[in-house]
Amino acid sequence: MTVRDVERDAMRRALALALNGPAGVNPQVGAVILAPDGRILAEGWHRGAGTPHAEVDALSHLSPGEAEGATAVVTLEPCNHTGRTGPCSQALLAAGISRVLYAVDDPGVVSAGGADTLRAAGVEVEADVLGDEGRALLSAWLTVQRLGRPHVTVKWAQSLDGRAAASDGTSQWITGPAAREDVHRRRAMADAIIVGTGTVLADDPSLTARDADGALLAHQPRPVVIGERQTPSGAAVRRHPREPLFLSSRDLTRVLDDLRREGVQRVFVEGGPTLASAFVRAGLVDEVLAYIAPALLGGPRLALDDIGVETIGDAVRLTLSSVERLGEDILLVARPATAPSPANVKDS
Amino acid sequence: MTVRDVERDAMRRALALALNGPAGVNPQVGAVILAPDGRILAEGWHRGAGTPHAEVDALSHLSPGEAEGATAVVTLEPCNHTGRTGPCSQALLAAGISRVLYAVDDPGVVSAGGADTLRAAGVEVEADVLGDEGRALLSAWLTVQRLGRPHVTVKWAQSLDGRAAASDGTSQWITGPAAREDVHRRRAMADAIIVGTGTVLADDPSLTARDADGALLAHQPRPVVIGERQTPSGAAVRRHPREPLFLSSRDLTRVLDDLRREGVQRVFVEGGPTLASAFVRAGLVDEVLAYIAPALLGGPRLALDDIGVETIGDAVRLTLSSVERLGEDILLVARPATAPSPANVKDS
Repeated sequence: MTVRDVERDAMRRALALALNGPAGVNPQVGAVILAPDGRILAEGWHRGAGTPHAEVDALSHLSPGEAEGATAVVTLEPCNHTGRTGPCSQALLAAGISRVLYAVDDPGVVSAGGADTLRAAGVEVEADVLGDEGRALLSAWLTVQRLGRPHVTVKWAQSLDGRAAASDGTSQWITGPAAREDVHRRRAMADAIIVGTGTVLADDPSLTARDADGALLAHQPRPVVIGERQTPSGAAVRRHPREPLFLSSRDLTRVLDDLRREGVQRVFVEGGPTLASAFVRAGLVDEVLAYIAPALLGGPRLALDDIGVETIGDAVRLTLSSVERLGEDILLVARPATAPSPANVKDS
Repeated sequence: MTVRDVERDAMRRALALALNGPAGVNPQVGAVILAPDGRILAEGWHRGAGTPHAEVDALSHLSPGEAEGATAVVTLEPCNHTGRTGPCSQALLAAGISRVLYAVDDPGVVSAGGADTLRAAGVEVEADVLGDEGRALLSAWLTVQRLGRPHVTVKWAQSLDGRAAASDGTSQWITGPAAREDVHRRRAMADAIIVGTGTVLADDPSLTARDADGALLAHQPRPVVIGERQTPSGAAVRRHPREPLFLSSRDLTRVLDDLRREGVQRVFVEGGPTLASAFVRAGLVDEVLAYIAPALLGGPRLALDDIGVETIGDAVRLTLSSVERLGEDILLVARPATAPSPANVKDS
């Protein structure tokens, strides 16, 4: 079977509908039910964990029998298991849907297989319809499914010789305004921004994402402070537009799991050296952003401390994604040459 | 007066003749004596400190009176003082030369002024004839005159986080073959390559400039080992094609002065961290070459140690000249944002 233009248009509509739902623990999914003549019978989208999936939401707008012989156009493969909601494959069969198109395969170990179930029941199924657009929409969520945890970017600013501050602790500013603006732009792409209590006590950062004029950007990552020391009541982070999360655990796997269950897909680790080193040592880094100032500082205050490497053969090798000049500074973007082993793919 | 084509050709010839002499303490200089009809009467060049200057060398081929009314074409302004040889301006006047063309002004405080002396005596003088070519030929020597010491390049290889080795001291190889080949190519452009005894004892480097196949390049910098510890009799540096120089002084200004008097114009400081840091601390760096491997090492073995910077305002700020990718690695070429203060210009 081929995919008709009207069906492709319906997929575009479904992708747009998906954005009505929240990004988080569950994927953003949209669905459109088409009559055999190509008329749109119903639309739906997923409103977040515990609420009906998109195709079920769409079917809920129809009277019994109205979807008989209709086509379901969904951005993600209909699920095949009973979670907090029933399996969508069964709901589609029960409604009498005779044809299903979807963009992205369900990556879940438990939830996948919906397409096979539908095919076995005699439904025509077309996979990968506008697949690239669908995967782009779900990119961060798919990464979380693949890794079994949020995507982790670790950022630091350093002098050429790897120092985060001068001997007396002063560090403002190692890098220039262009680099700092780039940091803020990237903060705004994360769901959470993580710092250690040491950084909060030393630098009192606001952890907001701001433009060059200091105005807040539209999206603010949620600030997360890790460590056992108390954050002072007057700390700038307590005035962040989003409620800070204070986690006393130093078990970073557990921290990331907590954040994942809060719907966090992308975290931005801002420091300081102790926390950055801990993420590197734990092998929990997907991307490194090193802002390098063309300056030499010497001295003991390093941007990265001990990371558990004893000998050159055990160096944490990175692959450079890009080298960019930002004003006087340089930004190196790199990822581990050996990607962190994907955890068991879990289902939400 | 304008410069005739035949005179410009004579300057090209003089520049070629200059290369017959050695680069070193004294400049490479060539001279051509032209008859009024443009015919070449004599040629000369400078053969090194203590030997006749180029114009005097050329005149020495002529009989008394033969240069009467002739034109002298010289690559460097004729000197005006009595050093180990008499002033060239007087020699030209005594020979009856009526016109002098030269490419590069004499930068010496004592030796300059030859052009004025000649003009005052009624000789036609044209300066800056093929001046760019002349300055390119004498670039390294002119730098030595400006700085009052050899030009210093400090090179190191580091992991992204500023380490020169892993905790156990292993460092081969932090950077890849393309970076190492680039180092050899640049070694071959230096007159001397300096290391500390610590590096000799730890790494036993050969300090030769080699091509990718390990074959020696045509020009070899002279190896210089600085420090008080003894270099073992079996050390690779003792098999260097050029005789190693062992200097026990840690006074780098004095070391550079010694090298300058040996005719060294460009030095390449190869390490290790202690020596590199000492050059930075002393403000004796004209160029930094940082080969950065996209790898993280952590630990205590830093590419640069203490450089005497206490607070961020005192950081040694650099200006990036270039950022180059060499295989997996990056080469940053930088120079101090505030150039080392030129010492008093000395005369050789």
